[in-house]
Amino acid sequence: MVVGDFAEEKDVIVIGGGPGGYHAAIRAAQLGREVTLIESKDVGGACLNESCVPSKVYTEAASQLKAMKKAPQYGLDAVLPERVDFSQLQEKKHQVVNGSAKGVHDLLKNYQIEVVEGSASFLSSTQLGVEKNDAFEKFKFENAVIATGSSRYWPGEGKMSTNRQLCGSEIYQLHEIPGELLIVGSDYISLEVAHAFHALGTNVTLCIEEKNPLAFDTAVNKELLRLLKKEKIKVHTEVTIQHVNETDTSIVVDFQSKKGAEQWEGACFYRPGMPRPRTDTLHLEAAGIEVDEQGFIPINQAVQTNQSHIFAVGDVTSSPKLAAIALKQGKVAGEVIGGMKSEWDPFAYPVISRTFQPVASAGLTKEEALQEGYAVKESTFPMTGNGYAAIAGEKEGLVKVVSEAETGVLLGFHSIGPGAVEMISAAVQVLEMGGRVEDAAYPYYPHPSFNEAWMEAVEGLEEKAIHLR
Amino acid sequence: MVVGDFAEEKDVIVIGGGPGGYHAAIRAAQLGREVTLIESKDVGGACLNESCVPSKVYTEAASQLKAMKKAPQYGLDAVLPERVDFSQLQEKKHQVVNGSAKGVHDLLKNYQIEVVEGSASFLSSTQLGVEKNDAFEKFKFENAVIATGSSRYWPGEGKMSTNRQLCGSEIYQLHEIPGELLIVGSDYISLEVAHAFHALGTNVTLCIEEKNPLAFDTAVNKELLRLLKKEKIKVHTEVTIQHVNETDTSIVVDFQSKKGAEQWEGACFYRPGMPRPRTDTLHLEAAGIEVDEQGFIPINQAVQTNQSHIFAVGDVTSSPKLAAIALKQGKVAGEVIGGMKSEWDPFAYPVISRTFQPVASAGLTKEEALQEGYAVKESTFPMTGNGYAAIAGEKEGLVKVVSEAETGVLLGFHSIGPGAVEMISAAVQVLEMGGRVEDAAYPYYPHPSFNEAWMEAVEGLEEKAIHLR
Repeated sequence: MVVGDFAEEKDVIVIGGGPGGYHAAIRAAQLGREVTLIESKDVGGACLNESCVPSKVYTEAASQLKAMKKAPQYGLDAVLPERVDFSQLQEKKHQVVNGSAKGVHDLLKNYQIEVVEGSASFLSSTQLGVEKNDAFEKFKFENAVIATGSSRYWPGEGKMSTNRQLCGSEIYQLHEIPGELLIVGSDYISLEVAHAFHALGTNVTLCIEEKNPLAFDTAVNKELLRLLKKEKIKVHTEVTIQHVNETDTSIVVDFQSKKGAEQWEGACFYRPGMPRPRTDTLHLEAAGIEVDEQGFIPINQAVQTNQSHIFAVGDVTSSPKLAAIALKQGKVAGEVIGGMKSEWDPFAYPVISRTFQPVASAGLTKEEALQEGYAVKESTFPMTGNGYAAIAGEKEGLVKVVSEAETGVLLGFHSIGPGAVEMISAAVQVLEMGGRVEDAAYPYYPHPSFNEAWMEAVEGLEEKAIHLR
Repeated sequence: MVVGDFAEEKDVIVIGGGPGGYHAAIRAAQLGREVTLIESKDVGGACLNESCVPSKVYTEAASQLKAMKKAPQYGLDAVLPERVDFSQLQEKKHQVVNGSAKGVHDLLKNYQIEVVEGSASFLSSTQLGVEKNDAFEKFKFENAVIATGSSRYWPGEGKMSTNRQLCGSEIYQLHEIPGELLIVGSDYISLEVAHAFHALGTNVTLCIEEKNPLAFDTAVNKELLRLLKKEKIKVHTEVTIQHVNETDTSIVVDFQSKKGAEQWEGACFYRPGMPRPRTDTLHLEAAGIEVDEQGFIPINQAVQTNQSHIFAVGDVTSSPKLAAIALKQGKVAGEVIGGMKSEWDPFAYPVISRTFQPVASAGLTKEEALQEGYAVKESTFPMTGNGYAAIAGEKEGLVKVVSEAETGVLLGFHSIGPGAVEMISAAVQVLEMGGRVEDAAYPYYPHPSFNEAWMEAVEGLEEKAIHLR
C-alpha cells in the first residue's frame, strides 16, 4: 500500500453515494460548496441497486398481473400469462437500476461534484483516507457527511452462507424462481417479497412472529390478512422459529405457531433481518465520533454528530431506516453545510408497502396514540363505499383516521388500497400542519375518485360521512 | 290531472337526486331534519347515470388497455386484445351505474329520507306541487333545496336530432362503436371521450376551436398534444366549424383550421355542448327566485337563493359545473338547513380529466395569476426525472407549480401523468391553507414514488430540486 505524504485539501466530503449521500452532496453544491463524494461501490446505494428499487420493479410486475385479471370485466379479453417471465423481469430491473444510476452520475457531474472511488476511513476529525486497491489518498476537509448506510444480518446464531437462506436484499439477487418460499417477517419489505414472489409463481408461506406482529394499524392488518387469504397464501401467526435444517435439495424449518408445532419444507427461507451500520472500516473513533449501543451514529436536528462539523444521514444513524428519511436528512446536511438553517424531525413520515394492495401510513396508530396518553377517536371508511372503487373494480382496502377526541387534531392516517401511496401526501400535509377534522374535510376532493374515501374517513370522525351508514 | 285540495306539510324538500341533491338531503337528515327528496327520473342524477360515471368506466377500460401494453417489459407476456369488447364494457357500465344507484337508494332509506317520484314546480315561496302521470300533490315546506342540474345543448342553429350528431352525455348511450368520430372540444369531457373511443378502436379526430383552446395550463396542454400525437390521433387547432351535412350513411364537416380549409367525413360528430339549467318546469318565478341572464340561479356562500329559506346547489346555479362543487354545495345546504354555520367558496377546486394520462389541476395557471396582477414564479418537473416513473414504465407527464414571486405563496398546481388525480389532494390542501414553498417542500414524501415529482416541482421554485439540472 502506498500512503501519500500530504493531505489534499477538500471543502466538503460526502462518504457514501446512496440517497442520503447524493442528496447531501447536490444540495451543498447548489449552495456553492465544493463537494467530493466517496463511494466504494455504486452510486445510488443499497436503495437503488439492491433493495427499494429492485423490490419495486418486482412488485410493479406483480401489481400489473393482478390488474390484468380484472380486465375481462371491461371487455378486455387478453389471454393472461400464467406467471411472470423471470429473465425478462430481471432485464427490466437492470434497465431501471442502470438508468437511474446513470441519472445520478449525470446529476453529480452537472453539479461538478468530484466522485472518488474507494473506501474511506477517518484519520482525525479533519482528515480522512481513501483506499482503492493498493493506493491510499489523504484528504483534509472542512465538513464531512457520513452516509454509508446499513446492511442486514440475522440475529442470534447467524446464518449459513447459502442460496437457500436469504436476508434483506439477497432475495432480489436470485436468478431462479424458488418453487417454495417461507417468509418470516411482517414488515413492509417482507410483504413486498410475498407479493412479488407469489406473482412469480412461487408457493409463498408467510410466518408472522410472536414478537413482531404485523407492522401496521389493526384495521390495515386485518384487511391485509384477508387479502393474503384471498390470494391463497398460507399465513401462520404467533410464530417462533425453532430449528432450521438445510440439505442439498431443500430447507426444513420447524416452528411453533398459534396452532401448535409446524414443519415447513421448501426451496428458500427469507427473513428481512436486522439493520447493522456500515461503519466497519470508517474508524469513527479516529474522528472522535460517538456511536450508540448498536453502533449507529446519534445525530441532532441539524443532522450533526457530536463533532458538529461532521454530519451523518440515513441508515447509518440512529433514525428510522427509511429512504425517505435518509434523503430528507441528506438535504438538511447540505443546507446546514451551505449556511442555511435547516432541520429534520422524525414526525409524520409515510411508511409504504407496495404489497397486494398498497399500504400507506403516516402518524400514530390508535394504539400508539393511546400509549402517548391521547383520548382518541377513530373512523374507518371501506373502499366498498367509494364510487371510484366501483368504477375501477378495486374495492379492496380502507382508510382509517385517528384524531384527538377533544380538539379534533388529526394524529394518524392508515390506508390500504388503490392509490394509497399517492394519497398519503395529502395526509402528511395535514399532519405536518397539525390540521383538524375541518382542515381535511373542507377542501374539494375530485369526484368520482379514490380520494373521496379519505375525505369520508375524516368526516366519519364527526359522524358526517355521506356514504357510511 | 287531479289537483289535491290541501298541501301536505313537509320539513325540508330537496328537488333533484343528483350528487348535490342527495348530499344536501343526507346532511340535513344527519342533523335531525325530516327530508323529502323529489326526483323525476333516477337518483344519482346525470353524473351517475349519464355522464361522469359512464365516462369513467370507459376511460378506465382505455387506461387498462394502455397499461397492458407496457406489461411485456415486465415479463408479462399477455396476448392483448386488439380492442375493447363493447357489449361487455356496456354491461360493466350498467353494473356500476345500477350498483351505485342502489347504494344511493339504500343510503336515503337508512337516513329515513322520503323519496317522491315526479316533477316539481313551485306554487309559492312556501309551497310546491309534484306531478306524476295524472296525479298532482301539493307540499308545504320550511326549506327547499333546488338541485335539478343542467343539460347540454349546441349553441347557434342547434342540432338535428340524430344518432350522428352527439352532445354531452349522448355519446355514452351509443350501442355501436362508431368507425370514425370527430370531436370538437378541448375540455376535460372531450378529452375523456377521445381517450375512451380511441381505445374502442374508433378513428378519432380532435378539433380544438379557435375560441376555446385547450383548457389547461400551457405546459400540460403541450404534453397533452404530444401524447395525442403519440397515439396517432389527428389534432386540428384554431378550428372554426363552417358547415355540417348529414346523410344516411355519414356526416361531413367542413371547417377552417390553422392550416386552412379542411373537410372531414365519418360516422359521428361530437361536441360537449353548453350547459343549460334544468328549470323549465320549476316555475321559479312563483317562488320569487331570481335567475341570471342564462337562467342559472345565483347563490351566496351559504348556497341560499334570494329567498333565504330556499337553497340551490350544483349545475343549476351560476357556479362552475363540476360534481365536486355540487356535492360540496349540497353538504353546505344540508348544514345550513341543519342549523350549522357553513360556507362554500369557489377556490382551489380540482379539475380532472381521465384522458391518455390523467390531468389534474387546482388553483391558478401562470396566465391567470398574471392576469390577477401577481408577480409569479413557475417550476416544471418532468416525470422523466422521477424514479418511480422509471420503475412503473410511466414517464409521460409533468407537474407544474406556480407561486407568488415575493412571498412564495403557492397559487396553482397543474399536472398530467400517473397518479395525478390522487396526488392533487395534497396540492389542494396546500392551496387551501395558503401554503408557501416550504410548507409543501418540508414534509416527507414516500421514496421512490410519483409523489416526489410534486415535491421537486415545488423545490424547483427555489432552484433546489435535486433531480433537475
